[in-house]
Amino acid sequence: MGHIMDNQDAYVKRLIDFLRIPSISTLPAYSKEMRRAAEWVLGEARRLGFKGSIFETAGHPVVYAEFCPYDAPTLLIYGHYDVQPPDPIDRWSSPPFSPEIRDGKIYARGASDDKGQLLTFFNAIESILAVEGKLPLNIKLVIEGEEEIGSIGFMPFASGHRELLKADVAALSDGSKYREDMPMICYGLRGLLYMQVDVYGPGHDVHSGLYGGAVANPAMALSWILGGLKDARGKVLIPGFYDRVKDIEPWEREEMAGLPFDEEAEKARLDVDILVPEEGYTVLESTRARPTLDINGIWGGFQGEGSKTIIPAHAGAKVSMRLVPDQDPDEIAMLFRRHVMSLAPKGVMVKVSTISSTGALVVPRDSAAIKAAEGAIEVAFGRRPVLVRDGGSIGAAIALKKMGIDDILMLGWGDPDDHIHSPDEHFSLESFRKGTIAVASLIYGLSGIKK
Amino acid sequence: MGHIMDNQDAYVKRLIDFLRIPSISTLPAYSKEMRRAAEWVLGEARRLGFKGSIFETAGHPVVYAEFCPYDAPTLLIYGHYDVQPPDPIDRWSSPPFSPEIRDGKIYARGASDDKGQLLTFFNAIESILAVEGKLPLNIKLVIEGEEEIGSIGFMPFASGHRELLKADVAALSDGSKYREDMPMICYGLRGLLYMQVDVYGPGHDVHSGLYGGAVANPAMALSWILGGLKDARGKVLIPGFYDRVKDIEPWEREEMAGLPFDEEAEKARLDVDILVPEEGYTVLESTRARPTLDINGIWGGFQGEGSKTIIPAHAGAKVSMRLVPDQDPDEIAMLFRRHVMSLAPKGVMVKVSTISSTGALVVPRDSAAIKAAEGAIEVAFGRRPVLVRDGGSIGAAIALKKMGIDDILMLGWGDPDDHIHSPDEHFSLESFRKGTIAVASLIYGLSGIKK
Repeated sequence: MGHIMDNQDAYVKRLIDFLRIPSISTLPAYSKEMRRAAEWVLGEARRLGFKGSIFETAGHPVVYAEFCPYDAPTLLIYGHYDVQPPDPIDRWSSPPFSPEIRDGKIYARGASDDKGQLLTFFNAIESILAVEGKLPLNIKLVIEGEEEIGSIGFMPFASGHRELLKADVAALSDGSKYREDMPMICYGLRGLLYMQVDVYGPGHDVHSGLYGGAVANPAMALSWILGGLKDARGKVLIPGFYDRVKDIEPWEREEMAGLPFDEEAEKARLDVDILVPEEGYTVLESTRARPTLDINGIWGGFQGEGSKTIIPAHAGAKVSMRLVPDQDPDEIAMLFRRHVMSLAPKGVMVKVSTISSTGALVVPRDSAAIKAAEGAIEVAFGRRPVLVRDGGSIGAAIALKKMGIDDILMLGWGDPDDHIHSPDEHFSLESFRKGTIAVASLIYGLSGIKK
Repeated sequence: MGHIMDNQDAYVKRLIDFLRIPSISTLPAYSKEMRRAAEWVLGEARRLGFKGSIFETAGHPVVYAEFCPYDAPTLLIYGHYDVQPPDPIDRWSSPPFSPEIRDGKIYARGASDDKGQLLTFFNAIESILAVEGKLPLNIKLVIEGEEEIGSIGFMPFASGHRELLKADVAALSDGSKYREDMPMICYGLRGLLYMQVDVYGPGHDVHSGLYGGAVANPAMALSWILGGLKDARGKVLIPGFYDRVKDIEPWEREEMAGLPFDEEAEKARLDVDILVPEEGYTVLESTRARPTLDINGIWGGFQGEGSKTIIPAHAGAKVSMRLVPDQDPDEIAMLFRRHVMSLAPKGVMVKVSTISSTGALVVPRDSAAIKAAEGAIEVAFGRRPVLVRDGGSIGAAIALKKMGIDDILMLGWGDPDDHIHSPDEHFSLESFRKGTIAVASLIYGLSGIKK
């Protein structure tokens, strides 16, 4: 503990170095920066005494490093070095890749998601090694570069390296506390199916005066299609979408109802007048344990100031669905495609593409690993964590589960208002410090579990 | 005629000069180029011996010049020096503001709409003066810079300068022949009401995993709104939209049915499988004498490659309606706004703005001016023109009508496939030459009408 406190400045400096790398996985123009980030991560692991290398995938590489000399349980630590794009860039108070500390928080894209949280593991390992000269268990690090784009390359990497990834427990911190003063352990994630719909009309933009009334308009067709995907009650209209959805159990609804939830504070944070949960469900249930569908982006035709009188040749949209057990992403993709096609009017050509696909996950709540994590978090944050399901998606967690790791500790040192995926993303330096302490405690706590 | 033929090269050179000026009225960044274009036009009028000046408006200036020394009828020539934006720029075969002649056609933004057609009037006046030393009637030129954005400034200019614009006949060439081999005179235009719809949700883009299912999505709300404006039968769903629409008269439907229309060629030109006219109407009726509604542009959230898992803070669209007699643009704007608001779901804020607004127009078909134009066109093009209604909108024609000019000759030397408002806009040099001859004949023909 003392060592962690004494070395904060060095840890913050390391985080600043990491945040300066614009490792945006979704933009092809940033592939060199992605490589730089992977090499930076491997370099830091090697500085700790780990052995490892960079593994190529079809997309961005995976960094793997290990320190496994002991006859002890093995902990696999997962994280990601990629970040979301920073746009809209004009909404940032300081440049997204020039980290700035203001009021005890560090502002940069990736500060909370996931570079800051990932480095708490590095900090803790460094401190234990500095003080004790050894670790109480074996540690494997696996850090990917495609979490923000659905872990496309991580899945084949994981199934191709089962032995390498073998572990008794996996841990990751890529979420947030339930509330700033209320740490949590997440036992469930929603899946993510991310699609693109492209609608093509005339071969080129045409004059809306000459042709308006007789040429099918791709933007209008897209509106009909998108408008037919969900209704105002929050119900997804794709036939069969809910067929395999496991209803939330009564005990779970009761537990969720017992969680504190300040709707007014949430609305103020989001700057909205009302929240619109799915009919028949609470806000917490809707965002954490129910499937949904959102348009993430839409485009077509003239987007400038003023007017341009055209029927656009093309319009498109990104549409993603959050899935819950036991929805099958492949089946839902097929149902989505079929429904979109059924909504397409005459006169346009519609293309549906799958961009990424991840299933949902629920892990056992009563394991020795969870108990160790509860203890570690209480030591670091002074409060026992709540157990909750999260609305986000971590494709890698599914991959690890498929590799045979049942106990996956989904931790979260971030705060709910860290603005992840948004302008002015930030991470509290207090969370950075406490997270590091929690990881150190967890490493000791897990050393006693059955191999 | 001989003079016109002998001076083609000089006329083409003048057109190239004009086309090099990127006078895009809708983009504020091009306001200096707009001024340059206005000054260029005034300079050319002065070279012909006209007296005139540049009149300021709230937007881009109007050029007015006159040559009125005679006791004879007065012809007012209208045109516009502004052009549409060139995007999508990557679809052009040569740069939009570097005119190129290929296969007897000049390619550039504005080649057909309206710079090439406008200059036929300048060419004809220059030729008559060169040969005769005088004109057979008085001529006024009024050339505006906001035709492509709804003639916003031209309306107040016209009503503020009634005396200046007083004339017996007005003429303009800002359209196309009915078919490449079939010249036309247009006796009707549709009106244009151009609106913008903005939908606002959370104060910043938010993570669709954390909030999807409980935060209203502006892009989804926009899809519901836009999808509710029109149905797949081509009917506009705004209550009251059709209330004042004058049905097409039986004689007019019969005349339109008699016009040649090659649907296969039209589909090939547009690169579409089918045309989708309003139910109960033919393609010609739907595009020329029936009102309609189109989305001209749509945007919101993430438009890049790959994925970004956000609920966007904002989504918007440009929506325009083509109107027919006796629809009132102000009333339709009000009905549009009311309908959009009725379609807006809970949890979002919707803003509706009017960008421009022009009424429809039908002029008398049996006037002496029309007869003079029929004769002039037959001389130049070797074929009597057909009389048709056009689907486009020319706000200035409405303004001239309101100024008391009943006889407005709406001519069109362009070809139907000139790609106006699209990439690779072009104008045939043959049309440029024949149009010039037609204007010269028309000037003589009109000299005999009653003052």
